[in-house]
Amino acid sequence: MELLTRNSLIAIVGAGAVGGYYGARLAQAGHDVHFLLRSDYAAVAANGWVVQSCDGDFRLPPGATRVYDDPASMPPADLVIVTLKATANDRYAELIGPLLKPGTAILTLQNGLGNEERLAGLFGAGRVLGGLAFVCINRIGPGVVHHMDHGLIRLGEFGGGRSPRAESIAAALRGAKVRCEVLDSLLYGRWQKLVWNVPFNGLGAALDLTTDLLINNEAGTRLVTAIMREVIAAARAVGAALPDDLIQFNLDQTRTMDAYLTSMQIDRQAGREMEVEAILGAPVRAAEAAGVAVPNMRMVYELVAAVNLGKMNGG
Amino acid sequence: MELLTRNSLIAIVGAGAVGGYYGARLAQAGHDVHFLLRSDYAAVAANGWVVQSCDGDFRLPPGATRVYDDPASMPPADLVIVTLKATANDRYAELIGPLLKPGTAILTLQNGLGNEERLAGLFGAGRVLGGLAFVCINRIGPGVVHHMDHGLIRLGEFGGGRSPRAESIAAALRGAKVRCEVLDSLLYGRWQKLVWNVPFNGLGAALDLTTDLLINNEAGTRLVTAIMREVIAAARAVGAALPDDLIQFNLDQTRTMDAYLTSMQIDRQAGREMEVEAILGAPVRAAEAAGVAVPNMRMVYELVAAVNLGKMNGG
Repeated sequence: MELLTRNSLIAIVGAGAVGGYYGARLAQAGHDVHFLLRSDYAAVAANGWVVQSCDGDFRLPPGATRVYDDPASMPPADLVIVTLKATANDRYAELIGPLLKPGTAILTLQNGLGNEERLAGLFGAGRVLGGLAFVCINRIGPGVVHHMDHGLIRLGEFGGGRSPRAESIAAALRGAKVRCEVLDSLLYGRWQKLVWNVPFNGLGAALDLTTDLLINNEAGTRLVTAIMREVIAAARAVGAALPDDLIQFNLDQTRTMDAYLTSMQIDRQAGREMEVEAILGAPVRAAEAAGVAVPNMRMVYELVAAVNLGKMNGG
Repeated sequence: MELLTRNSLIAIVGAGAVGGYYGARLAQAGHDVHFLLRSDYAAVAANGWVVQSCDGDFRLPPGATRVYDDPASMPPADLVIVTLKATANDRYAELIGPLLKPGTAILTLQNGLGNEERLAGLFGAGRVLGGLAFVCINRIGPGVVHHMDHGLIRLGEFGGGRSPRAESIAAALRGAKVRCEVLDSLLYGRWQKLVWNVPFNGLGAALDLTTDLLINNEAGTRLVTAIMREVIAAARAVGAALPDDLIQFNLDQTRTMDAYLTSMQIDRQAGREMEVEAILGAPVRAAEAAGVAVPNMRMVYELVAAVNLGKMNGG
């Protein structure tokens, strides 16, 4: 895909809250969007998408919603937007493979690190873009999405640099009521977000503490800070020159928030598998492969892995 | 106190479930026991102690129970048994000081490390004995104690070695339906118990996981084992030559137990202050002072400290 146009066919793979929301916005704006669903397939086929959004509620009626529960029955796409939970990444080949034709671009909006690399390994690096979704969103029922706050997408080429292709996707999103920025360096953007995600998702899930309880005391703030420092050191070692003041910025920002449950803490409390490898494991491995010692990151990774497995095994 | 006899006056300081149970057993056996209480003072003054015990239920009627809410009103004791929560140790001087006369012995049955040292610093090392209580016991109402299982006390001289004094206390406890052993080395006994307590209390409280969920998976077992290894290394450095097979023994033992909540996890879930310093902080400091690196112990200590403070500050 050279450029995303009105004639392009867009496939959303893993249409939960995030995929449902952004896909429905694009469809609402007139794009040809095809949704691959699993658990909510029947509900969306019958009722379409119901979106309660801080940027305006809307419905996408069944007639205007193309939904599938089998990728083999879908037409080849110009752009595949991947919004699977990262724990399902071992199904990339099975779910995305059938949708590809020469030139199909793949944009992953998934959490954490390593998604683009894995897609590139399977389907070729030239196809791959990545994006960060800064959005507060929940699935509140089958096919019903509640978009509470924010919504910015920052996206970029896996290979780095700005491209007409990335700009055209951003333009389409902006035309669909979605704030969007194109990143000069996706690598930089990913690691910048990890500076917040690793300590708050990691410690939040390990200790089952909301963000406010983590940094309302010196001991917790010291831990969060130590982890942020390691993420920044790792980022620099892999080529993302993050500034030191990102630590204070993130702490200050987080203090303005209420008791916030990260996605991993929500998954923990709901008894669902957590995105341990994407959010914690992959950054630890990247850091260590670059020769950066990250003992606090590693410990948090191992703690969350233990919680995840312990709960999965023990119910 | 040379020897504990039938004429000796015993004071129980901090008579919660543990102090209430052992004190009531001694009183039931005919000893002269004086209880210092706080929250349950009125209930025990009015109704005495009510004990539901796997070794036989009994009541200690109000007339047979000497209770106080102020140490200044208590007679000097021959033996003071300390069963305060270790988080109250900064009240030692105020609560125990008024009970002492020349020769008064002090036996702490509190959790963790550092209690004997602090008592020795305040009142003289010669007075101090320590004991480990292996008992499943709960306060189920004001003045009502439920003794579910076990009950063994292992006690010894703070200064080390067996003494007629320690033997006489053990004999009195045995005469009161309490299993009791005298330790050759209290230091060895304390560290032996820490091999279990540091990982299971520490990780259990940090992660809010019962013992079974911690070791039903490889990641958790690896963490528990790494911590046990550090505790053993620290113990050896301070003079307690614990064997390596204590790790496998403790893992095997724990696997025979059901989902077990440690005292620290119970405190966490109840929103009460946890015994962080006695069970985690003091062992970490002792290890590091002896030149032993204990990164996993330190991390768990810091995590639990953060949870403790976070919850205290955040409610």
